[in-house]
Amino acid sequence: MHGAEFIQDLAVIMLIAAIVTLLFRWLRQPVVLGYILAGVIIGPHTPPFELIQDDHTIKIVAELGVVFLMFSLGLEFNLKKLTSVGVTAFVCAMAEIVLMTWIGYEIGRYFGWNAMDSLFLGAMLAISSTTIIVKALDELGMKQERFAQLIFGILIVEDILAIGMIALLSGIAMNGSVDAGDVFATVGKLSLFMIVALVLGLLMVPRLLAWVARFESREMFLIAVLGLCFGFCLLVLKLDYSIALGAFMIGAIMAEARQLHLIERLIGPIRDMFSALFFVGVGLLFNPAVLIDYALPIALITVAVVLGKMVSCGLGAFVTGNGGRTSLRVGMGLSQIGEFSFIIASLGLSLQVTSEFLYPIVVAVSAVTTLLTPYLIRLADPLSKHAAEGMPTSIANVANRYTTWLHSSQPEGDRAMLIRIVLRIVAQVLVNFAMTVAVFVAGIYIFGVIELNLASSISDEQIQKAIVWGGALAISLPFLIAAYRKLKALSLLFAELTISDAGSVGRVLRRVTAEVIPIVSIAVILMLIASLSRRILPSPEMLMIILVCAASLTVLMWRPFVRWHSRLQIALFDTLREEPDSNA
Amino acid sequence: MHGAEFIQDLAVIMLIAAIVTLLFRWLRQPVVLGYILAGVIIGPHTPPFELIQDDHTIKIVAELGVVFLMFSLGLEFNLKKLTSVGVTAFVCAMAEIVLMTWIGYEIGRYFGWNAMDSLFLGAMLAISSTTIIVKALDELGMKQERFAQLIFGILIVEDILAIGMIALLSGIAMNGSVDAGDVFATVGKLSLFMIVALVLGLLMVPRLLAWVARFESREMFLIAVLGLCFGFCLLVLKLDYSIALGAFMIGAIMAEARQLHLIERLIGPIRDMFSALFFVGVGLLFNPAVLIDYALPIALITVAVVLGKMVSCGLGAFVTGNGGRTSLRVGMGLSQIGEFSFIIASLGLSLQVTSEFLYPIVVAVSAVTTLLTPYLIRLADPLSKHAAEGMPTSIANVANRYTTWLHSSQPEGDRAMLIRIVLRIVAQVLVNFAMTVAVFVAGIYIFGVIELNLASSISDEQIQKAIVWGGALAISLPFLIAAYRKLKALSLLFAELTISDAGSVGRVLRRVTAEVIPIVSIAVILMLIASLSRRILPSPEMLMIILVCAASLTVLMWRPFVRWHSRLQIALFDTLREEPDSNA
Repeated sequence: MHGAEFIQDLAVIMLIAAIVTLLFRWLRQPVVLGYILAGVIIGPHTPPFELIQDDHTIKIVAELGVVFLMFSLGLEFNLKKLTSVGVTAFVCAMAEIVLMTWIGYEIGRYFGWNAMDSLFLGAMLAISSTTIIVKALDELGMKQERFAQLIFGILIVEDILAIGMIALLSGIAMNGSVDAGDVFATVGKLSLFMIVALVLGLLMVPRLLAWVARFESREMFLIAVLGLCFGFCLLVLKLDYSIALGAFMIGAIMAEARQLHLIERLIGPIRDMFSALFFVGVGLLFNPAVLIDYALPIALITVAVVLGKMVSCGLGAFVTGNGGRTSLRVGMGLSQIGEFSFIIASLGLSLQVTSEFLYPIVVAVSAVTTLLTPYLIRLADPLSKHAAEGMPTSIANVANRYTTWLHSSQPEGDRAMLIRIVLRIVAQVLVNFAMTVAVFVAGIYIFGVIELNLASSISDEQIQKAIVWGGALAISLPFLIAAYRKLKALSLLFAELTISDAGSVGRVLRRVTAEVIPIVSIAVILMLIASLSRRILPSPEMLMIILVCAASLTVLMWRPFVRWHSRLQIALFDTLREEPDSNA
Repeated sequence: MHGAEFIQDLAVIMLIAAIVTLLFRWLRQPVVLGYILAGVIIGPHTPPFELIQDDHTIKIVAELGVVFLMFSLGLEFNLKKLTSVGVTAFVCAMAEIVLMTWIGYEIGRYFGWNAMDSLFLGAMLAISSTTIIVKALDELGMKQERFAQLIFGILIVEDILAIGMIALLSGIAMNGSVDAGDVFATVGKLSLFMIVALVLGLLMVPRLLAWVARFESREMFLIAVLGLCFGFCLLVLKLDYSIALGAFMIGAIMAEARQLHLIERLIGPIRDMFSALFFVGVGLLFNPAVLIDYALPIALITVAVVLGKMVSCGLGAFVTGNGGRTSLRVGMGLSQIGEFSFIIASLGLSLQVTSEFLYPIVVAVSAVTTLLTPYLIRLADPLSKHAAEGMPTSIANVANRYTTWLHSSQPEGDRAMLIRIVLRIVAQVLVNFAMTVAVFVAGIYIFGVIELNLASSISDEQIQKAIVWGGALAISLPFLIAAYRKLKALSLLFAELTISDAGSVGRVLRRVTAEVIPIVSIAVILMLIASLSRRILPSPEMLMIILVCAASLTVLMWRPFVRWHSRLQIALFDTLREEPDSNA
């Protein structure tokens, strides 16, 4: 009777986790550490030894914790919040990830570990812990301060970059090496997938949830949310991305549903239950003997995490125009590693590319840095005062002058608006390009299915290719037309700004520029697509016929296509603009 | 990588369950049927065949559904609601269970199935489905009507009796036979455990939860609730009772916490998720081929369930003084089987005493009767009108006269109050007796532990027995004193009521009655306890010394003991009386 064993194990875990975490909470220590300690107590490496029987099933179920943690993180993800602290957040996160990955890799190599272990160690040190920071700032009552807002922004950027990192690490682990082309292809595919999934998801998921919410049954709504969440994770798994990515993305999509608060309320308890299991599971894998065997690496890595993050994030914040005090607080607030490190450690173990000893080392470093977090945040203020007093006047002057110069050189008024408009148009062109590419990728997939299931002669194949490629082009036409119109607007703007001659020559030049750039761009896009879809590209004669057809279709259907596309675009922007119901 | 397999399976299940149940909800059919159908689609007996890989883990996890379903049922359990419809609910539930178990058994024997299969079939038909009835009445907007209140009362009594039934069935399955002594011992032990666990639980759990709630962390509160729930289930499992019993009891205990609404809100989504998995798991086990092989039994059992429950519950309600229309509605509302039948079917399979074919038969019968439920409820009204019109006048007269007589013979005023007081005192004596027995059972357990761990000579053993037995008696003294005082009050009441002589003889008789009955009762209780605890009863000489010591302790500590006991009792009643916070 395995079922009873599993339930007994779960009972032991929940009971011990509840007792230990209540104790930790009562002692005002981070609850996450309580879970991990509960796991260590239950685990096979410490007495009493035989507390659970079916730890295989427990570990499997604990992996659900990753799904719900990432899903919740996605629900809290907010594009608007991100843009308000955008530049600082991006610079800090990039600086932190690059520096910490490098430091981690170098430390690993220094101790003679192999390249894959060292690389994974670097990745584990790169990302700070959202859970721990949010809880620490909450307990200190500092969530509303400026530096806390910056920290949240950095955490969001980190989450996105971490997603890319997981995809990259999986790829490297599979192929064993880092190839610039591979990296480019991986990032390209990932970006394509993310853009297309976000656009389609934002168009469909909130509408679907609104329909389900009309039944006014919490059970149905929850099951629909879980069905969508797991269904998307399944799709992501089939595309060989990690389930963490899928859960985060579908969470970010659902964050734009009007029923966001209801989703959060329903998912909250499930996340808490499984994340408890997940952290207990982390503790289960932890062998305290490693603490002694690897005392030196643990100490060194801990110091590296605290100092490395303090310097990279602090400098990043300072360089992008935040004062010394705020920058120091940002840096010291981010000085720890947490759930993401465990996720990456699990990834390495499950891909069987990292050594067993990495996991307990990372758990130990995470435990120590988590314990330090509240003290470091509180220490930042006196330390910055102290530093300001002790700093030589010349350095302080340079620092002050830098901040003043940076603020005065920020684009303002018309110029700032212009930059925003240009960026927006470029983004729209990219999204339409991505949609077009996605249609052709789908075409290649469909062609593959046809080829597999129908035995066909070569002439048949040519006709099939022509039909699939032509169909993909027809479906892409609205996106291509939209891209063309955006590019035309951009060229017009560009012509107006760069060609200042007011005479007829200038007029002609402007006219030519505004017409030529978009046509050339679309031609380049079509050639890119032709090259990407060379698997299903028909023969040149066929291609000519298809292109002539497409051209006639474009002329005939220009207005319906434009109307149809703008309706989609409005629907998308409506979804993004709508605030969630507060009384859901 | 088993983890990924499990998550993929779960994703398939949640996705298909969401689609099918949304379809069912949209078609206004019971959602539970949607889950079961999703399970059948996913399951191995219908195409597409290979939808999930690790169905072993899925089945294990689905068993958590039972825990959360029973826990939620416990949370909704309410002693106050029960007393308001007490007699009718008890009579109907008893009539239903006895009749249906007998019918089920006879049907099984008729088809030539073995005794254990037939007995389990009977048990599966005995209990109606709370989930399905509550949902059907909710959808029909009839939840507030008198017959609905009666149905809820019957469902609560059924739940309690079902718990006893599960315990009994497990016992019978283990020993293979039904022995009157065994039944008595099983029921006695179960009652003892339930009383003691309820008293201790009500004293401790709500206080513990109130303390945890002071941390104002939903996560901590949820983990504490889960820890208590699973911890109690673990205890129940160790005592060889079913996990369903444990989950229901700890739910009923937590129902008296002030944070009841918070508990319900946190547990709701988790229950919905796992109950979905549970019902899908039911579908996974369902082989549609059985529908054809066992068409006749299924049809016969379905008719038996509908008619049997209609007759037993309807007659039960009528006999206890409800009108014909209400009685018919009660009977027709309860005409289905559901989650409890699946739990009992799982029990039979996991104890390996029932045949494989029983499960799909019960699922089929449940599906058909569930589909019928809303129509039967709606049909009850016209049917009762029709019956009233078509009934011969003589029968209608007899029925009317019976109802009138019953209402006139109900105890009223002083007599009704007297009955309530007497019942209350008897209940208090029983609870104190149960606590005393529990202390001695604990003593036996402790003695067993000592005996196991310390090698000891015979004289040592005598001293150990004396210490353990004497200690148990000392701890029981407050309960014995309380029982004595309650018995004295009862005897006084009895003497006043039965001995009407106002003279001195009467006074003496009354005095003697009031003094003798409680002393004799306590002596009987002590002898019972001595016989129950014969494993650790010391030698007669030792016993004399202990009794003398206990007598002196009683005299010396009478007042503190009384004060201590009444404080406990007040704490218990406070817990029962307090309403849950509405804004928790």
